[in-house]
Amino acid sequence: MLGLENTSEKAYEILRDYDFDNLVIATICSHTDLQLNYGAKQEGFKTLGIVIRDDPDKKKKFYQQAFPKAIPEYFIEVDSYKDILKPGIQEELIEKNTIIVPHGSFVEYVGADDIIKDVYFPVFGNKRALPWESNRKKERIWLEGAGLSMPKKIKKPEEIDGPAMIKRHGAKGGKDFFVVKSPEEFFERMKNKKYKLKDLDIQEFVMGTRYYPHFFYSPIQKNSPTEIKGYESGKGILQLMSMDRRDETTIDEVQRLGSIRELEEYGIHPTFVVTGNIPIVMRESLLPKLFCMANAVIEKADVLFGGIPGPLCLETVVDENLNFRTFEISARIVAGTNPFVPGSPYSVYIDKDLSTGRRIAQEIKFANNSYQEEKDFNIWKEIIS
Amino acid sequence: MLGLENTSEKAYEILRDYDFDNLVIATICSHTDLQLNYGAKQEGFKTLGIVIRDDPDKKKKFYQQAFPKAIPEYFIEVDSYKDILKPGIQEELIEKNTIIVPHGSFVEYVGADDIIKDVYFPVFGNKRALPWESNRKKERIWLEGAGLSMPKKIKKPEEIDGPAMIKRHGAKGGKDFFVVKSPEEFFERMKNKKYKLKDLDIQEFVMGTRYYPHFFYSPIQKNSPTEIKGYESGKGILQLMSMDRRDETTIDEVQRLGSIRELEEYGIHPTFVVTGNIPIVMRESLLPKLFCMANAVIEKADVLFGGIPGPLCLETVVDENLNFRTFEISARIVAGTNPFVPGSPYSVYIDKDLSTGRRIAQEIKFANNSYQEEKDFNIWKEIIS
Amino acid sequence: MLGLENTSEKAYEILRDYDFDNLVIATICSHTDLQLNYGAKQEGFKTLGIVIRDDPDKKKKFYQQAFPKAIPEYFIEVDSYKDILKPGIQEELIEKNTIIVPHGSFVEYVGADDIIKDVYFPVFGNKRALPWESNRKKERIWLEGAGLSMPKKIKKPEEIDGPAMIKRHGAKGGKDFFVVKSPEEFFERMKNKKYKLKDLDIQEFVMGTRYYPHFFYSPIQKNSPTEIKGYESGKGILQLMSMDRRDETTIDEVQRLGSIRELEEYGIHPTFVVTGNIPIVMRESLLPKLFCMANAVIEKADVLFGGIPGPLCLETVVDENLNFRTFEISARIVAGTNPFVPGSPYSVYIDKDLSTGRRIAQEIKFANNSYQEEKDFNIWKEIIS
Repeated sequence: MLGLENTSEKAYEILRDYDFDNLVIATICSHTDLQLNYGAKQEGFKTLGIVIRDDPDKKKKFYQQAFPKAIPEYFIEVDSYKDILKPGIQEELIEKNTIIVPHGSFVEYVGADDIIKDVYFPVFGNKRALPWESNRKKERIWLEGAGLSMPKKIKKPEEIDGPAMIKRHGAKGGKDFFVVKSPEEFFERMKNKKYKLKDLDIQEFVMGTRYYPHFFYSPIQKNSPTEIKGYESGKGILQLMSMDRRDETTIDEVQRLGSIRELEEYGIHPTFVVTGNIPIVMRESLLPKLFCMANAVIEKADVLFGGIPGPLCLETVVDENLNFRTFEISARIVAGTNPFVPGSPYSVYIDKDLSTGRRIAQEIKFANNSYQEEKDFNIWKEIIS
Repeated sequence: MLGLENTSEKAYEILRDYDFDNLVIATICSHTDLQLNYGAKQEGFKTLGIVIRDDPDKKKKFYQQAFPKAIPEYFIEVDSYKDILKPGIQEELIEKNTIIVPHGSFVEYVGADDIIKDVYFPVFGNKRALPWESNRKKERIWLEGAGLSMPKKIKKPEEIDGPAMIKRHGAKGGKDFFVVKSPEEFFERMKNKKYKLKDLDIQEFVMGTRYYPHFFYSPIQKNSPTEIKGYESGKGILQLMSMDRRDETTIDEVQRLGSIRELEEYGIHPTFVVTGNIPIVMRESLLPKLFCMANAVIEKADVLFGGIPGPLCLETVVDENLNFRTFEISARIVAGTNPFVPGSPYSVYIDKDLSTGRRIAQEIKFANNSYQEEKDFNIWKEIIS
Repeated sequence: MLGLENTSEKAYEILRDYDFDNLVIATICSHTDLQLNYGAKQEGFKTLGIVIRDDPDKKKKFYQQAFPKAIPEYFIEVDSYKDILKPGIQEELIEKNTIIVPHGSFVEYVGADDIIKDVYFPVFGNKRALPWESNRKKERIWLEGAGLSMPKKIKKPEEIDGPAMIKRHGAKGGKDFFVVKSPEEFFERMKNKKYKLKDLDIQEFVMGTRYYPHFFYSPIQKNSPTEIKGYESGKGILQLMSMDRRDETTIDEVQRLGSIRELEEYGIHPTFVVTGNIPIVMRESLLPKLFCMANAVIEKADVLFGGIPGPLCLETVVDENLNFRTFEISARIVAGTNPFVPGSPYSVYIDKDLSTGRRIAQEIKFANNSYQEEKDFNIWKEIIS
């Protein structure tokens, strides 16, 4: 039962009055919206897109025309995504029986705290998970609390004694990540930055290959009559949907020019801004361990903030001893699922043509069918907040 | 209406006499031929392959046997691909009601200028676009004319003041690309080369991640009765089929040995020869801008040389500020579409199992059906030259 | 006819008594087991998984629950995979009419020599190929004997005169691979290692891009009534199923930190441990040559040890002149096929939804149908040993 916050209680009241034969799935037109629209349509839902009015890149035209099978039936135009918090917009969403799926851009533009405090329309998943994935201190409490190994935290720059990754809290898109190898290098790099030390997260840079597995956790389908099967986790089931490697500019093509140190001589510093995603699969013998890790993260989420129904992504590095380090977690759909809209080498073992976007729609449909048959509203409280 | 050249007018006359119930789609056995054959068959066409006689690699055996669903019904054997220009071969193609799809190897082996001057059998797309994509000066006029940002052109080696990419006009497969970082390095590298300065194109090397989006532009389907939908562009529609990253030997694995500068100490210089393609998707928030860019390129092509019906690929770099630089364009099917023969994470939003090869066959089929119903030959003039 | 060894003769006697309406396909729960289970089920077989008892990563739970369409019907629990050699386990497998598919982990854990000497249950493929692919000297005799170009062998460290790759015989997962550029560097790196010189394989490090094409060779389907077509090779047909690039920690992300030489200053040395696989396609004009190479390898295998029915993978580098070097071969299913469980850009030209795992099941099914119709046991001897 996720709804302990006031806005969630209000969302449940609102949801009770929805026309359950005409639910609409919505999100902001960005990030994974095409996938979510397409997945919702595969499951028979209509969709709604929230889009910026008068965009120089003609975003509305793009979402209205570019991909026929991923066009929302409805649009709401806003001047700023923050406008979603305004009662006028919220009422408009509610009037259309909308359930919102929060993705990375949604969380970034609207803000995790404001979503919890002010959003009272029904949100898919547990919105209280959002601050835990966007604040690095909370994230570390959660992941290490679940027994996961993370890159070692370095308390102060003076303690840097090998490759270290510097991240700014809440840095958008990795623009303010950088790597240093000594305290001297750290202070050198900080000269031109206006950051405060307290806003920085310094951690060991773990050598290895990066894997971003995309899980889905359903708290409602373990003992369901349709018997959708999966890895048993807490009261629900855990599924692996797909896996990607993030592609980051400029770091991921930096070797076409020279080593980082060489480029520094030219005053060029690599950045870690995500620009895309490459499909990948992991050595099969590592998957059982990965499921243990995801399972522990889900159980810890239950204790800390009431659970994480829906998608989650562990952002991992595999080192030369085949040990995992988890450097981040996303408790919502990630853009790394976008290569797998037609299905993935993992989801094919679960269902045909199964993306994370479609899986979310299946979960909503499953809850809806169950509610309409058994009239027990509690099932909604498991997946909506 | 593409057919302003004499050879195109002749092609139209020839096409008028074709047996439209038995059109054959053909190309040279290389590059994207498997995809084109398979796509043509998916749409009900027979296919023809032009293949080199007596090849040490047994190319004909390969195309005849390796992939059952991509075997041409007909073969024409030649001693050299240039033989396609001979009237005997042209008549043989015409006798079989053939429409040729020019791909990268076709253009490279036969030559853009000779295709325009001497080929009078029907060619899919606008053959007058070919010199515009293969000559770097024309390419720059086209792309910058469309408002696209390109890597800065450096007029003379003395003006190199940072990483610069040196390309030879018409260099085949990237063998003669190299990177220098100063005038001194440029002249050092030129010592052993026999190139003339005027044959070289020197441009800024843009740090970033490379994305090769594959578009398809249909000038004939906007107001069609079947209402195939897409992003409105000029009088037609624009579709994104797929996206790849080129894999280039030796540059794309150079880091397994050392930095470029370190390797130079051993007399090893990286090359940029394309050997394959890796599937990729782009951050969704960048796609609307990308469609604006492709749209502008199509509109400019209309003005400069009568348009580019069919496939086009923008070869882009995304920098750390998420700005695009377009360093090249291909106005024909690219090999980067080959990972997506079974469909792509983008084409799934348009149609099931949709590759660029199949899309080309659909376009020919659409024109053919329309022509057979309405007897207006002009529709062929929109997509054939 | 593969069965010249005593254990193979025994396997044939055992197979004669199998209940051919209830064949079971089995392997060790690791490597490509999910794919093999799924592929077997696609073709109507039941499956069996051999799994370690009481594993900290809960492997049995993973294989029983994680992927509903890839769960074995039967499990055999062992304390060590070597236990497969024990008559008790062998009898258990035989009782269930089991055909085992040996994959990389199977060969690694049980051992090629012990499989030949002690395993008398029916094994898919020719088990006598296994020592030829796992011993570097035999591998070189085989591949060079087939006319393939390999990285030059360097007889002693003193002869290193450029980039050289050092591999330890039978090194597991690439942990003990390293690159040196001179004799001095070699001896420096060897200081801390406990290897003997005779256990090492020193070869030229070939600059280029790596491609791992996955072939399937069927000795039984060329003249079959169902006319499954393919590239004619010896008495059978050769098919290309898919292609990947191996992803190796830490070498494949090393550039995110610095060049190898720079990292050595910190005492960090890259490793070549396989952690995953990335899908890739090769420039089409290189494929005919690749088929010639695979064909030659198959013909040489016939001469050397009776042939290689089933999957094989050539591990190649393409250099700047578009020449291939083959640095290894796998004569069994490789993990690089795992990105292609739903099918690949190559297998789509053969059959829908065709993975290597499914292709193996098809081969067993084809032999079984043929045997049940014609009662000629020899067909089993072509694909079982």
